[in-house]
Amino acid sequence: MIHILLIVSSLFTISTHAAVQDFCVADLKGPDTPSGYACKPPTIVTVDDFVSVGLRYAGNTSNIIKAAVTPAFSAQLPGLNGLGISIARLDLAASGVVPMHTHPGGSELLLVTQGSIVAGFISSANAVYVKTLKKGDIMVFPQGLLHFQVNAGGVTAVAFASFSSPTPGLQILDFALFANDLPSKLVEATTFLDDATVKKLKAVLGGTG
Amino acid sequence: MIHILLIVSSLFTISTHAAVQDFCVADLKGPDTPSGYACKPPTIVTVDDFVSVGLRYAGNTSNIIKAAVTPAFSAQLPGLNGLGISIARLDLAASGVVPMHTHPGGSELLLVTQGSIVAGFISSANAVYVKTLKKGDIMVFPQGLLHFQVNAGGVTAVAFASFSSPTPGLQILDFALFANDLPSKLVEATTFLDDATVKKLKAVLGGTG
Amino acid sequence: MIHILLIVSSLFTISTHAAVQDFCVADLKGPDTPSGYACKPPTIVTVDDFVSVGLRYAGNTSNIIKAAVTPAFSAQLPGLNGLGISIARLDLAASGVVPMHTHPGGSELLLVTQGSIVAGFISSANAVYVKTLKKGDIMVFPQGLLHFQVNAGGVTAVAFASFSSPTPGLQILDFALFANDLPSKLVEATTFLDDATVKKLKAVLGGTG
Amino acid sequence: MIHILLIVSSLFTISTHAAVQDFCVADLKGPDTPSGYACKPPTIVTVDDFVSVGLRYAGNTSNIIKAAVTPAFSAQLPGLNGLGISIARLDLAASGVVPMHTHPGGSELLLVTQGSIVAGFISSANAVYVKTLKKGDIMVFPQGLLHFQVNAGGVTAVAFASFSSPTPGLQILDFALFANDLPSKLVEATTFLDDATVKKLKAVLGGTG
Amino acid sequence: MIHILLIVSSLFTISTHAAVQDFCVADLKGPDTPSGYACKPPTIVTVDDFVSVGLRYAGNTSNIIKAAVTPAFSAQLPGLNGLGISIARLDLAASGVVPMHTHPGGSELLLVTQGSIVAGFISSANAVYVKTLKKGDIMVFPQGLLHFQVNAGGVTAVAFASFSSPTPGLQILDFALFANDLPSKLVEATTFLDDATVKKLKAVLGGTG
Amino acid sequence: MIHILLIVSSLFTISTHAAVQDFCVADLKGPDTPSGYACKPPTIVTVDDFVSVGLRYAGNTSNIIKAAVTPAFSAQLPGLNGLGISIARLDLAASGVVPMHTHPGGSELLLVTQGSIVAGFISSANAVYVKTLKKGDIMVFPQGLLHFQVNAGGVTAVAFASFSSPTPGLQILDFALFANDLPSKLVEATTFLDDATVKKLKAVLGGTG
Repeated sequence: MIHILLIVSSLFTISTHAAVQDFCVADLKGPDTPSGYACKPPTIVTVDDFVSVGLRYAGNTSNIIKAAVTPAFSAQLPGLNGLGISIARLDLAASGVVPMHTHPGGSELLLVTQGSIVAGFISSANAVYVKTLKKGDIMVFPQGLLHFQVNAGGVTAVAFASFSSPTPGLQILDFALFANDLPSKLVEATTFLDDATVKKLKAVLGGTG
Repeated sequence: MIHILLIVSSLFTISTHAAVQDFCVADLKGPDTPSGYACKPPTIVTVDDFVSVGLRYAGNTSNIIKAAVTPAFSAQLPGLNGLGISIARLDLAASGVVPMHTHPGGSELLLVTQGSIVAGFISSANAVYVKTLKKGDIMVFPQGLLHFQVNAGGVTAVAFASFSSPTPGLQILDFALFANDLPSKLVEATTFLDDATVKKLKAVLGGTG
Repeated sequence: MIHILLIVSSLFTISTHAAVQDFCVADLKGPDTPSGYACKPPTIVTVDDFVSVGLRYAGNTSNIIKAAVTPAFSAQLPGLNGLGISIARLDLAASGVVPMHTHPGGSELLLVTQGSIVAGFISSANAVYVKTLKKGDIMVFPQGLLHFQVNAGGVTAVAFASFSSPTPGLQILDFALFANDLPSKLVEATTFLDDATVKKLKAVLGGTG
Repeated sequence: MIHILLIVSSLFTISTHAAVQDFCVADLKGPDTPSGYACKPPTIVTVDDFVSVGLRYAGNTSNIIKAAVTPAFSAQLPGLNGLGISIARLDLAASGVVPMHTHPGGSELLLVTQGSIVAGFISSANAVYVKTLKKGDIMVFPQGLLHFQVNAGGVTAVAFASFSSPTPGLQILDFALFANDLPSKLVEATTFLDDATVKKLKAVLGGTG
Repeated sequence: MIHILLIVSSLFTISTHAAVQDFCVADLKGPDTPSGYACKPPTIVTVDDFVSVGLRYAGNTSNIIKAAVTPAFSAQLPGLNGLGISIARLDLAASGVVPMHTHPGGSELLLVTQGSIVAGFISSANAVYVKTLKKGDIMVFPQGLLHFQVNAGGVTAVAFASFSSPTPGLQILDFALFANDLPSKLVEATTFLDDATVKKLKAVLGGTG
Repeated sequence: MIHILLIVSSLFTISTHAAVQDFCVADLKGPDTPSGYACKPPTIVTVDDFVSVGLRYAGNTSNIIKAAVTPAFSAQLPGLNGLGISIARLDLAASGVVPMHTHPGGSELLLVTQGSIVAGFISSANAVYVKTLKKGDIMVFPQGLLHFQVNAGGVTAVAFASFSSPTPGLQILDFALFANDLPSKLVEATTFLDDATVKKLKAVLGGTG
């Protein structure tokens, strides 16, 4: 028994050193780096660093797009840090829309768990890939390409989007163009939209300039 | 109009060249490589290469573990090829179990969509991380570590596991040890299990030697 | 002398085997994979596989955007295959514009070599980063984010954009939205643009639906 | 001379900046990240950060498995930090065994330097790959798969295992199952082992529950 | 309006979390890691973190090699941090030479913007790839291979070298061999150069030993 | 029993699909790609694809450098393909030398198994790191940097070098400069060596021009 305890403890030592990169739970108060946040000391990591209950509940869809996106990225689920995967819940009330957007840092895999959704993406070659998805269906959106989701039924739809990065990013086209201080004349010159359209959407979305 | 058609067509040329790595839909009859399958020509790619309806339906859980795993990896969903993400459906009847296993090639993110599941993993430092998950909960299993899922309620549970690789692999411990021709004496020497136990499990799982 | 020739030839053998991944010049007729094209046999590789003279000359800017983009990606410069870098020449006549676009597969580093250009990008957080660049200035556009370039002087401007991928892709916003068969009502639902605007731009850019 | 000293010093400046990623010697007291430890300032790096003498000596094999594993990972050899390689020494007394285990974070390349070893691994498809290795032989164990080493001669064997990661991890099956507080009934449900076997091994290996 | 402002602000929240890895502008005073420097807080990032004006001006070529290299790596252009790309300006007066060198951490893509340059590299198989480049020509130098540039005209030449890394490194052969304290007898034993040659070059380049 | 056989066979199906990226044994007659060779069908893979006995025996050191390098890269050990690791045996007779060289594609970890070796490398900042290694000592050479090994005792030394790539490459400085048709005047201009030295070494090493 003494012998085996010796080897156990000596192998524990090995394992402790080696285990550092089993996982690197984000220390959200520590430095962030190109590969993710600094790691919490393993001694204070608990199972709750790897579990999120925040996606149990529907997001609030009482808004103009009748949709809500609730993410579980590194910031919400620290155990994802450095692991190359994350998830978000998508609630779409009747007529709800997730507007045209991209994820600059990762590919998306959408799983419909309730209702029906029309989803699509557009390739660099401008080819369009659109499909109506039902409960249990999945669809892939390759990294960085414009895509969208629209409720295809008369009732609330729910979906979960997994990403190939713990921090995939989310750039919503209309907010990028109209919800900031990018000068209207630059928006117009680079999108071919007319001044009235740009000004109207800036007014709705809170943009200036 | 002629001018813009010129630029459109010249830019289409750019896009076509550049788009090759928008995605690389698997040509499952072409060569496989360390980075994935050879790409189908983009001209024959359709939206159905990016969509799977195979996870709509529960897998058959009429077996000893009362569980079924239905994957959508590159082989089932060719649009995943090269993209760093995949998914599988997990059905657990009452008392169902996904036995202790690892995914050598990727981390897992489990989403429970029905019922309740006790899930856990063990680190290199032999620390145990176990949690009872309810509908809407998610849990992360870092790459390569032993983990398991057990139905925690009296009714069927359903979950979807996303992976940080299009080909994460799946090594089920009992099958690796007992469902092949690895000689019993090597199993015994390397697991500390006794001969009777090894022989019994080999008999149940179809192993020889 | 015999001895050294022996060692030279034996080390040549080592080098030949080892050198395979010095480079992997694209065999554009061979299979494409997620990591790039299959390699030409090293024996038929020449210096011209690593050199491009195609960017010596200005592209044709006689089009509606008064701009031309001439790429040297893997398809044009096979020596780039697998190497994580590529380049394109940008010609902007007076008033020329490279419309709002993204590169799904790589970051961009723009170098102005003639004239003056207003360039900018927008982050996921909708922050705007815009600057007027002069000859010799460089600007970084992180991967996947919307960005644009506009001639800022009264004369032709020239720039060279390097990318962190041999196949960065190029998704031009207006072409993605208006130059294909994505149904107008989906464009409208996902961009908040009105029907007249969408129809007008579809007409200009050759889109249908 | 003055000229060349000028260029030398200006190029030194370049080199100093550029050299940061020649290497990133681990500052083991600094933050750890998904890509490895923070770097020591290059000015205090010495050759000893790149050299280990700790593997000169046999590990202590006076234990139940008659084996010892002595690692040189980032924690022991800081110059490995971020470099994608590490090594460990393996001593196997007569009848010694390295029990069934995995390295979650890297592939292994085993080199036998003394004696004879039976080594093997099992694939996801449950195929078994076993071989008796003699001095000078090498064997590859792909990332994350179960594998083992057993002394195949009557005398002490020595081997060195290189890994494709500075922190490959080490999960020893029996310790993961029986040397912690994972409840016996979960072990039994997920391994098909009977209660007596689990309890016995927990007692031997120091597990509880 | 209230509704849309709600969704905007909730989506801003998402974006802010997600945006962390849009970019990671180097905090040059923070820790450096194998993946790059720690990130500046996004709130203090400005467009100037993504722009460099330092390459507008010719470097000082009044030195023995009649050449100057002016880098824009992470240290000079913090927005490059973690992005896999960087650039340097190369000025070559008449008869100027960039001596034989390697970039240990990245491939190079050279663009000639003025004059004419003879450039070349040597493969692991000792094959030589040399070409005379004119204004607008580009040439690829695969990672880690010896290469050089020599002014091929009677007038000043200018080129810009892009790299597939924000910190590609730069190892100049003569400085590595002769501008430090590497003992002469080790230089001689490992290069086959004679003692007089080594001593002479050490004297010129400031080496000792 | 029938039930369990059903689940075994259905899970075998999963495993077979998933296992593709457990490993990708090189089909050396198939296409090579930037990520490695195409994979052999798993059905014809055997344990001998993962084992090499070629390093059992000393290489022939009857040559001018009194040294031999015997590699086990992808070409010699197909199971390494795509796995990020490889190895080579180094034999150094008394006075033997491995001349100054680089590995463009990977870092090296040297293990001395017999005798004594002086090894060293030089950083981009021209710092020198040299150490005398004895049996059991290891030393790291970061990717792409110039390094060397010299026998430090009066008897034959043996070492094994592991690499962080299955195809690390090997560029031997003297062969790159003097064993090919790189014109002497280019060698001289880019190395500061005089014409007599270059011509003499070209003559010894078989170079022309």
